[in-house]
Amino acid sequence: MSSNLYIGLVHHPVYDRRREVVTTAVTNFDIHDISRCARTFGLGGFFIITPLESQVELVERIISHWRDGEGAAYNPTRKESLSLVRVSRSIDEADQEISRLHQRRPKRVATGASPHPDSIGYDELRGLLKDEETPFFLLFGTGWGLTQEVKDSSDYVLAPVEGKGYNHLSVRSAVAIILDRLLGDRINSSE
Amino acid sequence: MSSNLYIGLVHHPVYDRRREVVTTAVTNFDIHDISRCARTFGLGGFFIITPLESQVELVERIISHWRDGEGAAYNPTRKESLSLVRVSRSIDEADQEISRLHQRRPKRVATGASPHPDSIGYDELRGLLKDEETPFFLLFGTGWGLTQEVKDSSDYVLAPVEGKGYNHLSVRSAVAIILDRLLGDRINSSE
Repeated sequence: MSSNLYIGLVHHPVYDRRREVVTTAVTNFDIHDISRCARTFGLGGFFIITPLESQVELVERIISHWRDGEGAAYNPTRKESLSLVRVSRSIDEADQEISRLHQRRPKRVATGASPHPDSIGYDELRGLLKDEETPFFLLFGTGWGLTQEVKDSSDYVLAPVEGKGYNHLSVRSAVAIILDRLLGDRINSSE
Repeated sequence: MSSNLYIGLVHHPVYDRRREVVTTAVTNFDIHDISRCARTFGLGGFFIITPLESQVELVERIISHWRDGEGAAYNPTRKESLSLVRVSRSIDEADQEISRLHQRRPKRVATGASPHPDSIGYDELRGLLKDEETPFFLLFGTGWGLTQEVKDSSDYVLAPVEGKGYNHLSVRSAVAIILDRLLGDRINSSE
């Protein structure tokens, strides 16, 4: 149903605490938590984006342990969620993979914790996702967030999750909340 | 505003994969991710519930590192979220602490991944939370979830977050989604 939505967890280019552009390390919990969310909400795929070969290999080793190795029998629900995970060296590489699958360039949507003048709201994006012909690629930054360049190169910037004077959710929590707002079962939530 | 809502992360009594009652280990990521959610949505407090002294000490050491130690200067947003964290030896002990603060026993709400015949929906609980005189204590199970006994001893059981044929979110993701459904800014989500 919602297989036109893909998410990317970006480890480069992102800011560090001093707003310098860096490459962050892949976090094991991100892979598991976010792939379970991706599976729960029926996404088309979850791209882990890192240019570092050592990190690419690490992610592939983790996935294959749970998908094909001993882990698959121990924890089948993890195997199922990890089947959605792909590794890409760059946002553009992931973009090209989605384009190949859908024969159409995905609309890129950046997320972040700060307000943005032209941001798109949740209901509006929820509506756009109903056009199943168009793939969407929702990007989340690790570290201190996606760079301005990534935001500028996106078709949309999504409104932040507003807290009560505090906007420092983990990326794992932000993914969970945003996917629920975009794809969560509204009927169930008001029964 | 929402300081009448407290959450408890239960490490005992919970089920393991064979539905035996066990005590799970505290996970560092749970403390940080969930306390950030608690701070974002303006909760009254976040109780980590474990009967094991070694685990109580571990949690207190982590909190004090970030609250008072070197971590406080390095990452002030983490200090701020951890100020909401308390450790209790049992659900009842946490319950008593909330009762003391509010001069009123909290309404206990259990969560879980399986449907429950008499569950309360999100909109309904969202409405109940507006009565600020009444504290609410929302319980999340680690491992394979809260025991039947805990559910039976609760005033309400909250409807599960329904996925597309998959109900295996991490507890961290479940907390994020459920707090957003109960307290998230609805105006922002439709702007």
